[in-house]
Amino acid sequence: MSRAQRSPAELFTAAEGGDRAALARLLSLVERGGDGARAVARLAAPRAGEAYTIGLTGAPGSGKSTLTSAIIKHVRAQGDEMAVLAVDPSSPFTGGAILGDRVRMQDHATDPGVFIRSMATRGHLGGLSLATPEAIRLLDAVGQRWILVETVGVGQVEVEVAGKADTTVVVVTPGWGDSVQANKAGLMEVADVFVINKADRSGVEQTRRDLMQMLELSAETAVPGEGGGWPVPIVATVGSTGEGVVELWEAILAHRQHATAGGLLERRRRFRLGEELREIVARRLEQRARDVCTGERWDALTDDVLAGDVDPWTAADQMLGSSFCMEQPAESGRL
Amino acid sequence: MSRAQRSPAELFTAAEGGDRAALARLLSLVERGGDGARAVARLAAPRAGEAYTIGLTGAPGSGKSTLTSAIIKHVRAQGDEMAVLAVDPSSPFTGGAILGDRVRMQDHATDPGVFIRSMATRGHLGGLSLATPEAIRLLDAVGQRWILVETVGVGQVEVEVAGKADTTVVVVTPGWGDSVQANKAGLMEVADVFVINKADRSGVEQTRRDLMQMLELSAETAVPGEGGGWPVPIVATVGSTGEGVVELWEAILAHRQHATAGGLLERRRRFRLGEELREIVARRLEQRARDVCTGERWDALTDDVLAGDVDPWTAADQMLGSSFCMEQPAESGRL
Repeated sequence: MSRAQRSPAELFTAAEGGDRAALARLLSLVERGGDGARAVARLAAPRAGEAYTIGLTGAPGSGKSTLTSAIIKHVRAQGDEMAVLAVDPSSPFTGGAILGDRVRMQDHATDPGVFIRSMATRGHLGGLSLATPEAIRLLDAVGQRWILVETVGVGQVEVEVAGKADTTVVVVTPGWGDSVQANKAGLMEVADVFVINKADRSGVEQTRRDLMQMLELSAETAVPGEGGGWPVPIVATVGSTGEGVVELWEAILAHRQHATAGGLLERRRRFRLGEELREIVARRLEQRARDVCTGERWDALTDDVLAGDVDPWTAADQMLGSSFCMEQPAESGRL
Repeated sequence: MSRAQRSPAELFTAAEGGDRAALARLLSLVERGGDGARAVARLAAPRAGEAYTIGLTGAPGSGKSTLTSAIIKHVRAQGDEMAVLAVDPSSPFTGGAILGDRVRMQDHATDPGVFIRSMATRGHLGGLSLATPEAIRLLDAVGQRWILVETVGVGQVEVEVAGKADTTVVVVTPGWGDSVQANKAGLMEVADVFVINKADRSGVEQTRRDLMQMLELSAETAVPGEGGGWPVPIVATVGSTGEGVVELWEAILAHRQHATAGGLLERRRRFRLGEELREIVARRLEQRARDVCTGERWDALTDDVLAGDVDPWTAADQMLGSSFCMEQPAESGRL
């Protein structure tokens, strides 16, 4: 059977056996959304739950790709495998791919223990906020144990995506700013570990003081118990030489230990899943709204409102009442 | 019976008879949303359809309030009445009120032929994009024939609100910019009439040339038939002295004539109503999504997904399938 004809189930079995091309094709199905993505979700769900995810985010130019490469090197030296998802919401079709390619080319192109993939949305109506957890679940299900999700930029979507990891690492650079920027972007709230990368430049200590001050401030205003009493470490690294990467990985492991022991990890994962489910429900309803707001019945009701026979609210309810049962959930997978 | 106890129907009858306090109370019901707003909508819908609405928008400082006051003066001099809705989305609780008060204080406070009201949202979940057309429908239903909707600012919401009028007037000032700003803000697309207000300042001709150039450009890229072949006039005014206001009003009347004769008015109103209905449907569904995504069943399904027993998509569909019939439209009016 040619590879082009393999079903999602066949691809999944192959991916479980280490077939990277099959895994790449499954990820493409996830990106595209629709029936294919749903089929992958059904295959992945029962087999996921063992992987640990690390989110890595920071402003463009903070050296995230180089740092990611150094992390991979360290993890591989320990004998572990790693998967990397490079997510670039601002440039769904090319930016992420270029980034992923760049990392892949550098040091790990021929290493079978490293799987690097850029994520784009490609028609997935739920966007990256839905495609990313699906992709993570797939990587988890085929046996990946460390999944690093790298996001480019510090916009709301990027922070959201990175903040949905088990441990979130925020990368800044010396002189990167007076921490106000980090605070503004919502990074203070999601950071479990701060990295001052490019620490061979001047200004490391000033940046460290700025971050510590902001962390103290945000600790004062934090909801008690939310952070779980974790003192956010600040690690200085030089991604290009690997300096500090051992300390960074230890900080990640320490946070993992802390989160696992205190029940924080379980609460986070549950919260995250709740958000994902709500997002799916919302997207489903949007689709239904589009379906409802069209057709002969809709036109007739619009006429009625224009003629003053009915008010808009009653018209909307009539439309919803008559055609909004979802007793037979469509498998068309419009999402 | 004390005024505080009057029902919406009683208030409506009183407002039809010219009771301004009753009309003000009905508008407060519209602003607050919920059951009261829906009751008003049911009363207003059968009686609306006769008023003509004028949208007036422009950057802060362009003198819209003063210009509005001058327009009112002119309309009153012709023996017509006028209602003004002052909408300020950026400052829902105070800004609009201040603006409305300012205009009301100035020249028309004691004139029974002028009704001025600021619009805030006050809990109406649909926001100004739903409250404004409802308020217009109410004013229309109680007998107002000219309704001017003034929006503060040039953000997306402001342009949207103003652009939903029968005739939309965009106010700029000399030296206000190179028209690129107007284009950026989407004002070129909604303008039926341009006003260069504060035309006693220098730079009027340059601004006129800029606007004409932009209008030519946007005419080239316009969808054929959309504008209905209307050459957007540019009128220079001095709101504080009333200079040019006669010409402005004539331009508005000319556009009204053009829109009415060519069927454009009907098409616009139908399109506008369609947008309003879609908005109501979307808000209803949002509410339903919030209702669905909670409770014991929701928690149990979340557990199932966490355990890998079901994938998120299937879980969402199960939730929607079992609880998403709206056969009995709720009258709770949560919107």
